[in-house]
Amino acid sequence: MSAVKLEEFRERIRKELDTTVDFWLQHSHDPLHGGFFTCLGRDGEVYDELKYVWLQGRQVWMYCRGAFLRKFTRVPGAGSGQWKCAFSLTRDGKAVKIQRTIFSECFYILAMDELSRVTGDKGMQLEAEQMMEQLISWVREDPAGLGRPQLPGDVPTNSMAVPMMLLCLVQQLTEGGGAEVVQKYTELASWCVQQILQHIQRGGTAILENVSVDGAELPGCQGRLQNPGHALEAGWFLLQVSAQQKDEALQRTAIDKFMELPYENGWDKEHGGLFYFLDVDGHCPTQLEWNMKLWWPHCEALIAFLMAYSHTREPALLHRFSEVFEYTFKHFPDAQKGEWFGYLTQEGKVALDFKGGPFKGFFHVPRCLYMCERMLDDMLANKD
Amino acid sequence: MSAVKLEEFRERIRKELDTTVDFWLQHSHDPLHGGFFTCLGRDGEVYDELKYVWLQGRQVWMYCRGAFLRKFTRVPGAGSGQWKCAFSLTRDGKAVKIQRTIFSECFYILAMDELSRVTGDKGMQLEAEQMMEQLISWVREDPAGLGRPQLPGDVPTNSMAVPMMLLCLVQQLTEGGGAEVVQKYTELASWCVQQILQHIQRGGTAILENVSVDGAELPGCQGRLQNPGHALEAGWFLLQVSAQQKDEALQRTAIDKFMELPYENGWDKEHGGLFYFLDVDGHCPTQLEWNMKLWWPHCEALIAFLMAYSHTREPALLHRFSEVFEYTFKHFPDAQKGEWFGYLTQEGKVALDFKGGPFKGFFHVPRCLYMCERMLDDMLANKD
Repeated sequence: MSAVKLEEFRERIRKELDTTVDFWLQHSHDPLHGGFFTCLGRDGEVYDELKYVWLQGRQVWMYCRGAFLRKFTRVPGAGSGQWKCAFSLTRDGKAVKIQRTIFSECFYILAMDELSRVTGDKGMQLEAEQMMEQLISWVREDPAGLGRPQLPGDVPTNSMAVPMMLLCLVQQLTEGGGAEVVQKYTELASWCVQQILQHIQRGGTAILENVSVDGAELPGCQGRLQNPGHALEAGWFLLQVSAQQKDEALQRTAIDKFMELPYENGWDKEHGGLFYFLDVDGHCPTQLEWNMKLWWPHCEALIAFLMAYSHTREPALLHRFSEVFEYTFKHFPDAQKGEWFGYLTQEGKVALDFKGGPFKGFFHVPRCLYMCERMLDDMLANKD
Repeated sequence: MSAVKLEEFRERIRKELDTTVDFWLQHSHDPLHGGFFTCLGRDGEVYDELKYVWLQGRQVWMYCRGAFLRKFTRVPGAGSGQWKCAFSLTRDGKAVKIQRTIFSECFYILAMDELSRVTGDKGMQLEAEQMMEQLISWVREDPAGLGRPQLPGDVPTNSMAVPMMLLCLVQQLTEGGGAEVVQKYTELASWCVQQILQHIQRGGTAILENVSVDGAELPGCQGRLQNPGHALEAGWFLLQVSAQQKDEALQRTAIDKFMELPYENGWDKEHGGLFYFLDVDGHCPTQLEWNMKLWWPHCEALIAFLMAYSHTREPALLHRFSEVFEYTFKHFPDAQKGEWFGYLTQEGKVALDFKGGPFKGFFHVPRCLYMCERMLDDMLANKD
C-alpha cells in the first residue's frame, strides 16, 4: 500500500481523536466534586453519577489532571496495613464497591505514575510504587489481601489479564526512566512475558485466556475460553518488549501466535468484526455477550497490526490493519454526536448506545487513535 | 376463549413437560459422584463438569432425589458459627466459589425442605429451618455474615429478589403444614409482601427492581432498572398470597401493577417477547444483555397470566396468556433435541444454544409447565 493510503488512515484517525477528546472534555468533568462522570449517554448526558475508579484511573492517565482519584480511591484492605482501591464511588467520593481483584489498583498506579511525571509530585510517585509493591506481592506471594476466601475447588490459575496488567505497569514505570528503575523491574518483566507465553496452547494453534499456573490447559469452559481482542492486546505488549530487547523470536511469536491466530479464529466471517468470546472446541460460550462486537477488541487489533507492520514492513500486516480499520470506522463512530458506540450486535447494529458506562470510559479509543497516529507519523516521516 | 382452546394449551404444555423431564433425566445425572451436571449443550452433552449449587437446589426441589447437595454444599461462613452455601462445586464436590448473597442458601432450603417431605427425614427438615433462621437474620438484622464489607457509599437497598425469595420460602415451608408453622411465618410473609409492594413507583406507573429501604426511588441506573419478567414473577407470588388471605385489593394490585404494567412496558412491540432489562426513563440499560429474550421471564409471564385468569376469569388475562404462549412456544422449544433454548437475540434468533448453563438449569421450564398444566386441569375439570 502506498504512502497515500497511510495518509488517509492518519487523516481519519486524527479527526476521530479530536472528536473523542472533545466529547469527554465537554461532558465528563464534575465541576462540583472533581473527578469524572463515566456514565455518559449517546449525547453526552450523565445518566448515572457513579464514578468507576478504574475508568477514573484510565482517564487520569490519558489526561493527567485532577486530584479526585488520589483523595478518595484508597480504602483499607483485608490484609493488615494493606490498601485496596474501590471499584466505584458515589459522586462525592464515598466507596460503593470493592472488587476482590487487582484491576482498580492497576489503573490507580497507572494514573498516579503518569500524574507524578506531569506535576513533578514525588509523593504521587511514591504512592504508585508502594501500591505496585503490594500488587506484586498479591500476585506472586499471597493473594489473601484481596479478600477472596481460600476454597478447595478454587485452584490458582494464570489468567492472562494479570501478567498483561503487570507488564503494562512495568512499561509505564520504566518508560523514560534510568537504568536503575529498568533494572528493578527486569525480572518482573521477564516473568510477565513467560506467564503470557504460557497461554499458547493446543500445540501452538490457540491462545487460551486461562491456564494453570504450570501452563497446562484447565478443564471446562474456563479452560477453553478465548478472548481474541485480549490476545491481540497481549500481542502488541509482547511486540513492544521484543523491540526493546531486540528479540526476533519473541517478535515472531507475538505476530504469529498473538495476532494471526486470534484474527483467524476470532474474526466473524459472516458479518465481520471480532467476536468477544469463543470456545476453542466450538461449544457455545456461556457469556451472554459472546457474539457481540465490542469497541475495545477492535482498538487493540488496530494497534497490534499497525505496530506489527511498522516493525516488520510485511504488507500482509498492513492489509490486516486495513481490514480491521474498514470494519471499525464503518461501525463504531457516531457520526452525529461524536465518540464511538461500544456495543454492537453480531450483525453490527448498535445494541447499547451510551458512550461511557461501567466498563467503557476515556481510554481504549483515545489510546488507540493516539498510538496509531504516532506510528503513522513515524512511518510517513521515515518513508524511503 | 373456549374449553377447546384450553385443551390445546394443555396438550402442548404436557408434551413439552415430558420432553424437558426426559432431557434432564437422560443427560444431567452424575453416576460417579452423584448430584447433577448443570452445563448441558444443545444435544445434552456435558460441556463443563462444574456443579452450580443454586441449580442443584432447584433440581432437587423439582425431583426430590439425591444426597449430593446436602453432603457438600455447606461451608463455614464469615460470621462465627454461621454457614454459607457454595455457589459452585467441582464435580466431586469441592467448593469453587461463594457468593456474598443469599441465593444459594435459598435454593438449598427449598431443596432440603422438599426432600424432607418425600423422605420423611426430620434432620433435613431441621437443616432447612436452621438455614432459614440464619437467612432471616442476614436480611432483617445483620448482613455481616454474608461477607460483604460495609462501605460508606453502599447504602442498604430493597432489591426485589430478596423479599421474593423469602416469600417463596415461606410458601414452601408452610405449604401443607399445620396452623403452628403458618403462624410462625405470618409476620415474615406480611413483611415480604410490604417490601415487594414498595417497588410500585412513579405514582403507580412502574415496577422498579431496586428501591431504598424506605421505599423511595434510588438515584442512577440501579434505581431506574426494570426487570419485567421478575415483576411478573412477583405478581403471581402476590396473587397466591391474595388467594390464601382472600385479599381482593392485593389481587387487584398483583394483576394491575405486577402483571399489566410489566407487560405493557416490557413487551417488545417490534419483535415480540419480553425485554430482559429496561430503564424507566428510556436510557439504554448498561447490562449488555438488556434487549435479549430470555426463557425464564416468559415462563413467569405464562404462570402469572394463567393464574390471574384462573382467579378472576377475566378474558383479557387469558388473551395475554395466549399472546405470551404464542411467542414462547414458537421461539424457545428445540423441536429437534428437546428442552428449551434459553437466550434469543432481540429479533428472536437463538444466541446461545446450550440447554443448561451457570444460570439455566432444571427449574423455570418444568415449574412453569407443571403449574400451567395443573391450572388448566383444574379449569377444565370445573368448567361450567
